[in-house]
Amino acid sequence: MRGGIDLGGTKIQAVVIDESDSVAGQARRSTPRDGGPADVADAIAEALEEAAKAAGGTPAALTGIGVGSPGTVNEATGTVANARNLPNWTNPFPLGETLASRFGVPVRVGNDVGTAVEGEAVLGAGRPFRTFLGLWWGTGVGGAIMVEKHRWLGRGAAGEIGHMVIKLGGARCTCGRRGCVEAYAGRAAMERKARRDQKRGVETRLFALMEEHGHDQLTSSVWQHALDEHDAYAEKLIERAIGALGAGAASALNLIDVEAVVVGGGLGTRLGETGVARIREAMLPHLFVDDRPPEVRLSELGDLGGAISAARLAPA
Amino acid sequence: MRGGIDLGGTKIQAVVIDESDSVAGQARRSTPRDGGPADVADAIAEALEEAAKAAGGTPAALTGIGVGSPGTVNEATGTVANARNLPNWTNPFPLGETLASRFGVPVRVGNDVGTAVEGEAVLGAGRPFRTFLGLWWGTGVGGAIMVEKHRWLGRGAAGEIGHMVIKLGGARCTCGRRGCVEAYAGRAAMERKARRDQKRGVETRLFALMEEHGHDQLTSSVWQHALDEHDAYAEKLIERAIGALGAGAASALNLIDVEAVVVGGGLGTRLGETGVARIREAMLPHLFVDDRPPEVRLSELGDLGGAISAARLAPA
Repeated sequence: MRGGIDLGGTKIQAVVIDESDSVAGQARRSTPRDGGPADVADAIAEALEEAAKAAGGTPAALTGIGVGSPGTVNEATGTVANARNLPNWTNPFPLGETLASRFGVPVRVGNDVGTAVEGEAVLGAGRPFRTFLGLWWGTGVGGAIMVEKHRWLGRGAAGEIGHMVIKLGGARCTCGRRGCVEAYAGRAAMERKARRDQKRGVETRLFALMEEHGHDQLTSSVWQHALDEHDAYAEKLIERAIGALGAGAASALNLIDVEAVVVGGGLGTRLGETGVARIREAMLPHLFVDDRPPEVRLSELGDLGGAISAARLAPA
Repeated sequence: MRGGIDLGGTKIQAVVIDESDSVAGQARRSTPRDGGPADVADAIAEALEEAAKAAGGTPAALTGIGVGSPGTVNEATGTVANARNLPNWTNPFPLGETLASRFGVPVRVGNDVGTAVEGEAVLGAGRPFRTFLGLWWGTGVGGAIMVEKHRWLGRGAAGEIGHMVIKLGGARCTCGRRGCVEAYAGRAAMERKARRDQKRGVETRLFALMEEHGHDQLTSSVWQHALDEHDAYAEKLIERAIGALGAGAASALNLIDVEAVVVGGGLGTRLGETGVARIREAMLPHLFVDDRPPEVRLSELGDLGGAISAARLAPA
C-alpha cells in the first residue's frame, strides 16, 4: 500500500492505493488558509491518517508516501518553496522530511501538476498519445508536456502554460506579471476579480451560492452551481477564462505541435466534457495549422487523479 | 561542391559551398513580386547559375542542391504550397523536381527557418547548447526548437512562434488570425501598417529612405537606415515589434524552458547585437522563472546562413 497526497490551494486530497493502483481509502481536508507550512503539513498528516484508516491501516504501515505539491519543488530533497497559493510559504520548507519523520516511511515530493499529468499518461486520458500537453485548470493554471510517457522538463521548469502571455499589457497575474493565461483563468484570479466587481455593484449569485453551500471561497463547485443557475456574470468570467485557456493552449500547440491536450485540475474536472468542448472551440481560431486540430480530452483519473499519481511516486 | 538556396519573401540568396562548408561563390536576386512559382523557380535558377559561376563552375557540376523554402514544404516530394509571401503560390508546386530536371542534379527542399536553425545548431550560435529556440525575424516570424542538434517537429509543424497569440483580439496577422507575434513583428505586417499610417498623415522618413536606396519595399536595410536617422515612427514600430517578440519568446521559454534563444532572419540579422539585447530585455518581464534567464544570442552564419544551411541538405 502507498499513500498519495494532492496538495492544492483549496483542498488536500489523500488516498491510499493498493498494488494495482486502485484506491483502498481516501480523505479530504480544506487547505489551511492561515498559519504556515507546518500547519499545512499537519493537515496533510491528518488527511493521510484518515485515508489510511479508511483502508484499514495506518500511515506507518505504508511502503511510502508521495506528495504532489505546488510551488518550487526540489524533488531530490523534498523541500518546497514559493507556493503562492499556500499560506506564508515562500521560504523552502522540508515537507518530505517532516512527513517522513512523522510516520517513519519514505516520502517523495513532486510537482503537483507534473505528477498528475504523468498519472494521466500512464493510467488515464493520455494513454493513447505519444505526445500531449496537460492543461491543468484550477486555483492556478499549470501544465506539462509529455513525450513518450516522460515529462519534458527543459532546464527543470518547463510546462508553465499558465504564464504564457496571451494579452500584452493585460490583467495582473498572481505571479505579478501581466497578461498571463492564469490572470484570466486561474480560480484565484477569477475570485479576486469577482470580489472586486461585486464591490463595484456587479450583480451575481456567486457569493450567495458560496455561503449557501458553506464555503468561504469560490470553489469549483460554487462556479458550477452558478453556471447551473445561468448566472450571467459567472458565465461571463468563465467565458473569459476559457478564451484565455484556448489562446494559451493553441499558442502552445503552434509551438510544440503535440497530438493532444488533456484537461484536468479542479475547475477542469468540475466543468467536465462541457468545459473541454468549450476549450477546444476556443483553441480553433488560433491554431496555425487548422486542418488537423489536436485531440482535446478530459482527464480520466478525476478528482482523485492527483493523489493517485502522487502515490505512484512512492516506493511500492 | 553543393548549391544552397535561401528563398525569402524579399530576396533569393544562392551559395555554392565546398567540402568544408565554406562559401566558394554566392549571388543574390530580388524575389519576383508578380507571376507565380515558375517565375520564382527561374529566379532561383539564375541566382544559382551566378553563384556557381562565381565558384568557377556550373550548377550541373554540383553534387546536389538544397533549398530552404517558406510555406508548407513536403520534404519527401520537394513540393511547396501556401507560401504566402511569394507571388500566387498557394497550390503545391514541384520546386524540387523543377530545379532537378533543369540542372540534372538531386534537389532537397526543406523548411526555410528550420533549415537555417539546424545550420546554427551545427555550425553557428547554437553549437554550445543542448536545447535552444531559433527565433527568425524577417518578412514573417518563424522559429524552430532544437534538441540535441535535431529539430523538434511534433506532428510536423512545430516551431511556429510567429503565430503564438500575444494579444487576444489584437492586430490582424498575415495568417488572417488576430494577435499573433507576426502581426506585430513580421516585416510584411510592419510595412502594411506603415503604409496605412502614412496615408493617415503620420510623419516618417521610411518611404523616402526606401526610394533613396532604390527599393520598393521596406527592406531590413531601410528599417536600419530609419533607425540610424532616429526616425521616431520607425523607432516606435520597431519597439512594438520587439515587445511582441520578447513576449512570444518568453511565453515559449515558460512552456519549454530551453537553454537559449538564437535570433536570426533578415531583420534579426540586420539589427544585430543591438536588436538581440533589446529582445532579451523585452523577454525579462514575462519570464516565469526570472532568476536564470536563457542566453539570447545572435545567429552567427549571418546573411548567408540560410543558404549555407540549405546547401547542407543536399548530398555531398
